This record gives sequence, structure tokens and C-alpha cells, in this order.
Amino acid sequence: MKTKKDTSFGIIGGDLRQAWLANILSDEGCKVIISGLEQCDTVSSDIKAGSVEDVMSTADTVVLPLPVSRDGTCLNAPFSPSTIYLDKIAASAKSGQLIAGGILSEDFMSRLAEHGALTADYYKREELTILNAIPTAEGALEIILRESKRTVYGSNVLISGYGRIGRVLTRMFKGLGARVYVSLRKQSDNAWVLTEGAEPVFIDKIRSCAECIDTVINTVPHVLFDGSLLRAFRPSALFVDLASPPGGIDFDAANRLGIKAISAQSLPGKCAPFTAAEIVKETIFNIMEEQILP
Amino acid sequence: MKTKKDTSFGIIGGDLRQAWLANILSDEGCKVIISGLEQCDTVSSDIKAGSVEDVMSTADTVVLPLPVSRDGTCLNAPFSPSTIYLDKIAASAKSGQLIAGGILSEDFMSRLAEHGALTADYYKREELTILNAIPTAEGALEIILRESKRTVYGSNVLISGYGRIGRVLTRMFKGLGARVYVSLRKQSDNAWVLTEGAEPVFIDKIRSCAECIDTVINTVPHVLFDGSLLRAFRPSALFVDLASPPGGIDFDAANRLGIKAISAQSLPGKCAPFTAAEIVKETIFNIMEEQILP
Amino acid sequence: MKTKKDTSFGIIGGDLRQAWLANILSDEGCKVIISGLEQCDTVSSDIKAGSVEDVMSTADTVVLPLPVSRDGTCLNAPFSPSTIYLDKIAASAKSGQLIAGGILSEDFMSRLAEHGALTADYYKREELTILNAIPTAEGALEIILRESKRTVYGSNVLISGYGRIGRVLTRMFKGLGARVYVSLRKQSDNAWVLTEGAEPVFIDKIRSCAECIDTVINTVPHVLFDGSLLRAFRPSALFVDLASPPGGIDFDAANRLGIKAISAQSLPGKCAPFTAAEIVKETIFNIMEEQILP
Amino acid sequence: MKTKKDTSFGIIGGDLRQAWLANILSDEGCKVIISGLEQCDTVSSDIKAGSVEDVMSTADTVVLPLPVSRDGTCLNAPFSPSTIYLDKIAASAKSGQLIAGGILSEDFMSRLAEHGALTADYYKREELTILNAIPTAEGALEIILRESKRTVYGSNVLISGYGRIGRVLTRMFKGLGARVYVSLRKQSDNAWVLTEGAEPVFIDKIRSCAECIDTVINTVPHVLFDGSLLRAFRPSALFVDLASPPGGIDFDAANRLGIKAISAQSLPGKCAPFTAAEIVKETIFNIMEEQILP
Repeated sequence: MKTKKDTSFGIIGGDLRQAWLANILSDEGCKVIISGLEQCDTVSSDIKAGSVEDVMSTADTVVLPLPVSRDGTCLNAPFSPSTIYLDKIAASAKSGQLIAGGILSEDFMSRLAEHGALTADYYKREELTILNAIPTAEGALEIILRESKRTVYGSNVLISGYGRIGRVLTRMFKGLGARVYVSLRKQSDNAWVLTEGAEPVFIDKIRSCAECIDTVINTVPHVLFDGSLLRAFRPSALFVDLASPPGGIDFDAANRLGIKAISAQSLPGKCAPFTAAEIVKETIFNIMEEQILP
Repeated sequence: MKTKKDTSFGIIGGDLRQAWLANILSDEGCKVIISGLEQCDTVSSDIKAGSVEDVMSTADTVVLPLPVSRDGTCLNAPFSPSTIYLDKIAASAKSGQLIAGGILSEDFMSRLAEHGALTADYYKREELTILNAIPTAEGALEIILRESKRTVYGSNVLISGYGRIGRVLTRMFKGLGARVYVSLRKQSDNAWVLTEGAEPVFIDKIRSCAECIDTVINTVPHVLFDGSLLRAFRPSALFVDLASPPGGIDFDAANRLGIKAISAQSLPGKCAPFTAAEIVKETIFNIMEEQILP
Repeated sequence: MKTKKDTSFGIIGGDLRQAWLANILSDEGCKVIISGLEQCDTVSSDIKAGSVEDVMSTADTVVLPLPVSRDGTCLNAPFSPSTIYLDKIAASAKSGQLIAGGILSEDFMSRLAEHGALTADYYKREELTILNAIPTAEGALEIILRESKRTVYGSNVLISGYGRIGRVLTRMFKGLGARVYVSLRKQSDNAWVLTEGAEPVFIDKIRSCAECIDTVINTVPHVLFDGSLLRAFRPSALFVDLASPPGGIDFDAANRLGIKAISAQSLPGKCAPFTAAEIVKETIFNIMEEQILP
Repeated sequence: MKTKKDTSFGIIGGDLRQAWLANILSDEGCKVIISGLEQCDTVSSDIKAGSVEDVMSTADTVVLPLPVSRDGTCLNAPFSPSTIYLDKIAASAKSGQLIAGGILSEDFMSRLAEHGALTADYYKREELTILNAIPTAEGALEIILRESKRTVYGSNVLISGYGRIGRVLTRMFKGLGARVYVSLRKQSDNAWVLTEGAEPVFIDKIRSCAECIDTVINTVPHVLFDGSLLRAFRPSALFVDLASPPGGIDFDAANRLGIKAISAQSLPGKCAPFTAAEIVKETIFNIMEEQILP
């Protein structure tokens, strides 16, 4: 049976998170070969680089970025001088090879499977999405510290949504001394928010607490903060939208009302690429233990 | 439409929690009539008491205790000088009356329904079980403060199980300065425990951290701590079992090993009956809003 | 130079804290001899016991209890079958011996000095009084959990005084989800309490928040809560007085008003004797490093 | 007796903090007149502006910036198109007028006193320096979130110095899930740091924990982190120096070692001018109550 140390890892494409993943695996004594990171100077110079084919023919486990692709055709590889086609990767996959990526299309997965490769979408792993809530929340905090004229301490913060990110944000902002309101839909979430010492607000009652809010952090991917609701807030309120586009805020309406609203996505890779890489690594190791090693 | 204030509440049987529920509802201006609490001096003397039939014929909403019955035949009514049969309650139920209790048998519910009464098992409501985790955790803390020769601060505490109670315990003991280990089975719980700053321990690895543990709090209703596992702990370790009998600890084995193990159930009603009553009240109000008022 | 391991320790008199101190020092490999703990079954049977003279003639460092004496004549030695006179200890002190105790009278210290012994009052050491605030606060918490019908979570707690114990209590009760009010006299303490996220109350304004308070913990050794101020609180409020007698509460007035008031002193030794012993040990080691070892 | 509302406030010079102070006082219903903020568009257009003489002849209480002056001759007034001389302010002071500023020279204070004005240095007020620790700590946090490739959660942070800022930083970084080390000199600070659940490190032992540290925040105004000590840290460690120049870090040495070191002062006014203004306002009100109103 192969141990993690015996496994050779291939890292293809991606941003700083992939670069740090290569460094961390290499520092832990794994064999690592990379491709598509040519223009990234974060990667340690000790790490072997090669063509996509070099990586695919060598590596036991190949890690593709999150997201694997933005257009369904090319790999997401901002540090690569040339375009890397998913077709090329699929064509050179080997039997028994594990190919892990964040958000894999059905089509791409079936093409990899045709070559006998095992596939894993690490973005579907709950441990990754839970742990990613931490760098996401810290990224939101950085934005708020930069943009606000007040301290977080003593401010009134409304967190919209009590999923993974909402839960981590609630604790973080409570810990910093903010008064935290959490908007939600379910009695059970209401109870959980009470156990945290925060103020639950049912979604149809947001209007009644809007006037006192300094900062809103949205995590819900539906437009809740439309022009009508935005008008209930003070123009000096700051809105940060963490939900994927179109997000939860009507940005045009905010603009017309003079309310500052900032959309921020993919914060783990941008704000804390080292930690984000560690989270991917742990998740890949968990996948390997479940799918290959035993 | 009736408001909560217009509703007349009947409280029959139960412990201090039911007594405080009567007091709280009365203080909030509701009409309240009680029965089966004759030997409890906590009930305010302003509150009208009567026979079971008086309550059943008068009250719009009747609240029975948690659990409603311990034997399936008689009401759980430790403060009543005489036995109250469930049959008598069922026989005097009225059409349109809401009868709420904690843990209702199918049989009892169908007999109430025959009379046209609405029934609700408040112990099945998630908001109640979540909020009850707080008095449960405080009750466990009281036991540990009383029994331990160490401060919680600086001690090593193992919490077995990461459900509602485990989650509240984790935060509470972290906040008090303990090093908290949480035993669990799932990668997602592992990630959540990490976000809390506690130490996750997969259930098959408990043995490896047992030697350093001062206090174990079990919340899982299966015997995990058998003689073999108990031997891995120091004899000075303190075990508190919050799970319903038979619980999660082999008490005989603990006894033989000289390990102190305490079984503690129904802590909310015993340790914080006022707060426990408030939680029941909020839950009953939620049920009324969903089932009757709208 | 002697290391701590080479030093022989003598422990004379005292309560469970002294017993645990003997056990801890012995477990760490030090030579230990005890006297005046004959009726305490907590002491490990491995530890050598002897007469007071045996200890005084053998030990490099002698640890006397806290307080050393309650009457100025006899050692505080509840586990001793016979009375131990301070005179006997003084008469058998040796030159160069370190004699440490909690609250040493001038007279006793000068008699020890006559024999060439070094003396140290560990109760005057700030590190001990700061760290003792933790078991003191946990002891107060235990009392409140036992006596109150509410959870600490969600209750309104007034802490009177913002010294060492007040500061630790503030953080502890905030962490448990209470709303914490702290009464104080100085603008700087007002600012510190704000940084903790608690509610500062100037001492002449207590009356205005009294009505909402569920629990009062007093740490100030002057009677602030006289009959007139007590009347501003609800009769259901619980008072815990941690200050040394006469304390900060008029207990007779509280009694007349039907307010429960509990006086609690010496909590570290009673509630967490193991931890209290560790704190004494660390303090004695610090004294040895400063006075003898270097 | 004048109340705060009857008092007319003059605000001269300064940065965004002074601008917000004018806004806040005006919003609270006070009469406000400003000078030396002409190029600042943060000031509400409702607020009356005038010459320095206008302000000095009108205002009961005049607030000068922090620091009042950087060169001893001119007012610190970055938003003023022309230079404002301290001499001009002193010459137009009135008898009974309160003139408050941050860091007032003896000379300037005596010239104001000659005109019968009362003077107050609000930077000497402990409530201001304590509360300012919050925006200072948040400013440091913003820098670290921006500069670090890791999350604060799970990182190892060394805080050098346990004064006001060190104390607030300790709690903040603990709350965010960092492992916090605090370097200190006194046994009593060692004990306080333990009560916070952080790791105390005596200043001569920093070297032994340096290897694991990700981030250092210095608050001590003496060069402790010289080339020799810096070499004990990893080159990837991030240093933030909050102490006034020359600060506590040898920046040249850091540079040579490839260690990133950032000097950051006056964070309250830069990062949270609104909150910083509120703190000045509260302090001025406290001064007025003590010096004038009673």
C-alpha cells in the first residue's frame, strides 16, 4: 500500500492556492511536479516543473484548481503563459490515477473515467467548505476594517444567512465586541443564534432593525436586499456581499441610494492562500484515505 | 382571532418547570389554571387551582409535563397527592383545544384527537431541544465544579459526541479556559470542532488522548466507555454521563477501576427550572402561532 | 547551587491545599516530609510523615498554610489531632531555612529571623493572588449554579468591584452568556470594563440598574449593599459575597427583605484544592529562585 | 450651570478624527464652529466654519488635535490650506475658556493660562488611552489580515508587551483562534496572561519560541528585536511595530534578513476616525464635568 509520502503529486494550473499547495506538499516530503504555474514566483524553486503531459504521466494524484474551469473548455490557469485545454488533461489521464479538482463537470469526469482514472470533486467535501468559512470570514473582516470609519467593536453588524459562513462570522464578530444580528428563516436557527449570544431576526423583520445597522454581510445567494429594503438602512451603512453573483444585494439600487456595497468572492484563495492550500491538502488526504489507501 | 393574552392556559402535573411555567404565563397577563401541583410551594398563590376536569373544561391550551408519563398510564405529577390517569385527561379533552406535552405516545395522541383536540409534542421541536442544551450544559458544569478538585480552567475535558449538547458544552468549556477534546465520527464534525478552536478526536483514537484527560462528559446514548476503554484513563478522571440510561459509560467497570462516574439526566428541570419553563413557553407560543393563531 | 529537585520540602498543617501540595511536590520528584496532616486521607501514603521537629530539622523549605494562624498562637491545622504552637515552629527553625506561609505576623517573622531563617509571605505575592482569582471565580460560579433557578446564560449579573477577582469574574460570566454589569469608581476602570464588552456602572448609579439584576457578586470589603440599596433589588435576586468579613452586604437587612445572601471565603482551598496547591507551588518556586537559588 | 448642550464647541485643525468630532457634537445638538478643516470634505456642510479668531472668540470649549503640534510652532492641521500658528491661538484665548488638546507643551499651556484659559491634555487621560487600544488593535489586525498569506485563526502570534494595547491585542487574537504568546518582564503579568488563556514568555526566553511564530506585534518603545533576536525567527514571519519611533524593531536588520516589518502609528485616527472621535468626545465631556460643570 502506498503512503502519502510515496505518492507523487501533480499540481496543474490555478492561483496562489495551488502554488502554496505545491510548496506545502514538497515541504512535507512528497514528490511534487507542477505545470501551468510558470508565471508564479511563489512556487519554491526546488519543485520540478514540466508540461501537462509530464505531470499526467508521472503523478499518482493530480490536483486541479478551484474552479477547474471558468468556461468548460480551458483549465483555470492564470499563471500559465499558454492555454491549457481540459481535453488534453482528459486524454492523458491514466488508469488508477486520482484526479481531484474543485467543481468538476459531469462531462469532464466521464472522460477521465474512460481512461480508468478516479475522480474527486473536493469542493463537494463538507470538511473543505466548513474550514473555508474561516478564511472567507477573515477576508470579509479585512474588507470591513479597511472600509469602515468605525471599529468593529461596538458596531451593529447584520449577518444575512446562518449557514457555514454565517455561523463562523457570528462567532468572529461577537468575539470582536460587535452587536451581531443574524437574519434567518427557521426556528431552529433562531435557537442556535440565541445560544451564541447573538440577536436572531426573522427575515421578514429585518426592516425593523435596519435603522441601527452599521454593517451588513450577506451570505445568501438570492436578492434579499432590494431597493425597498435598502432604503430602510442608513446611507452610511456598509454592505459586503459574499454570495456568488448575482448575490444578495441590488447593487444598482445601493448605488442610487449612496450606500456602499462591495461584492467579494473566492476570499480564501485571495486573502489566505497558504491556509486555503492547507485545507485543500487535508481534504485530498482524506479523499485518498477513503478511495485509494485502504 | 385569539391573541396569547386572550388564551387561557391549563397546566397539569409535572415538576418545578411546570410550576414556573404557570408563574411566568400569569406574570405575562395570561389566564392560568393549574392542577396536580398541590404540593409545590413555588406556584404563586394568585394562580387558580382546580381539578383536572376544571382545567380541561376551561383551558384553551393545556400543557402537560416532560415527560408526560413514565409508565404510559399515569401522568408524571410528583407534586400531586393523588394519581392522575391519562385516561381521565383524554376523556375530558375538548374539540379545538390544544394539548401540548413532552413525549406523547401515539395511543394517547389518537385518543385526544378523537375528541377533536389538537396535539403537539413540544419535545420534538428543535428550538426546544437546542435551547435546552444550555441548562443541560450548565447542570453538567455544576456537577463538575462540585466534584472536581481542579479548576475547569487549565483542565483537559473530553466531550463525547458533537450534537446539540456537545456543541454548547464545547463552547462553554473553551470559554472557561479548559483544553477541550471532542470525540466524533464524521469529517464534517471534525471541521466544525476545528472552527471552535477545540481538538477533534476520531472515536477510534480516544485511547491515544485518554491519559491526559481530567474530565469526560458523555452525550452519546451508546456504551462507548466500556471497561477496556476506561482503563486507558487515569483513575482520578471524572466521568459525567448526560445520555439517557443505559447511557454511554459502563458504570460497573468504572466502579471496579475506582473511577468516579456520575449519571445525570433531566438537568434543565432540576438545575434551572425557571429558564426551562421559559423555553417551554416560547415553544408553546411558536406551536400556537403555527397551528392555531393564523 | 541546589535545584528544586534537591531541595527537601516540609509541609506543616493546613487543609486539603497543603495535602495536595505535598502530593504534587512528591510526584515531581522532590523530597517531602509532612506534619499536622495526620487525619487527612488525601495525602499519598508514600509521603513520609513526622513530628513538627522532624520536619523543621530536615526540610530546606518549609511551607505553612494560608492563613498560617487564625488566633496568632496556634498553627491553622484542621487535620492535626493535636494543637501545633507557632512557638514550637519558631523555636526549631534553622539558619538558611526558607519558611513560607500565607499571612505571617511581624512577630512570628522576627522570631524566625532570630534563628537565621528566611521568611516569605506567599499571600503577598501578586502572581498568587491573581491566579487565585480563577478558583475563587469558579467557586462563586458553583454557588450560583447551585442556588439559582435560572441559567447564568441570559441572566443579568452585577459584579461589585473591578480588582483581580472582579476582572476574572467579568470575563467568565460574559463567556457564559450573561449580561454583566460591573460597579466601579474610576474612569479608567470604566474604560477597561467597556473593552471587555461589559456594562460599567458608577457606584452611585447602582440603584438605577438594580431592578433588572438577577445575581450580585460582591468583591469589595466595605458594606456597600446596605438595607437602603438592597431594597432597590428584586427579592428574588441572589447575592454572593466574596469579600472577607464583615464583607460588603448587610446580611441582616437582606434577611429581613427576603433576599438570599451567601458569604463565601477561601474558595480556592475548598473548591479546587489541587489547583490552589499548584498555584502555591509555583509561587514558592518563584520565591526560591529570587531568594535562594541564584 | 451650563450643560453640554449649551456649551459651544470650537474644533481647530487636525485630521479626520477632528472632522468626525465636529459632526458627532453637531448631531448631538451642540453648537459647533470649526477652523482649519477647509480641505476636508467629511465635515457636514451644516457646520459653521470660520477663522481661528472666530472660533477662539466664540467657543466655550476648544478642541485641538492629537498631537496639537509636530514642531512646537504650528498647529497640526493637514486639512488647512494655510499654516496656523500656536501663537495665534494662545493670543486669542479667553478667560474661563477650556482648551483641550492631545499632548500640550508646558510652554503653550502656560501661555494659555496667562489669558485665564483652562487647559487639559486629553492624551493624558487614562480612559482615552485605554479605549484607544481598541481601534489601535483593530488597525494592527487590518494590517495583518492584508499582509499575511495565512489566516489569523491557527497562526502563532507573539505580542511584545502587556500594557493597554497588549492586553486588548491578546484578547482579540485569542478570540480569533490564534495561539497567542505574550512577552513580558513581571511575574504579575505572567499570571494575568495565564488567566487569559495565552502563553506568557519572559522576555529573555523569546528566542526559544521564536521559531514557531508567524506574526509579531510589538508595543514596547525600546529596540528589543535587534538583528540577533530577529535571526531566531523564520524569514516568513511578519512584524508589526505599534510603538512610536524608533520603535522596538531594528528595521534595517529585518530588511537584511528578508523579514517584512511594518511600522504603524496613530492607527485610531487613520483606521477608525469616527470611533476615535467618539472617544475624544467622551473624554472631553469627562474633563468638563470634573473641571467646569460642577
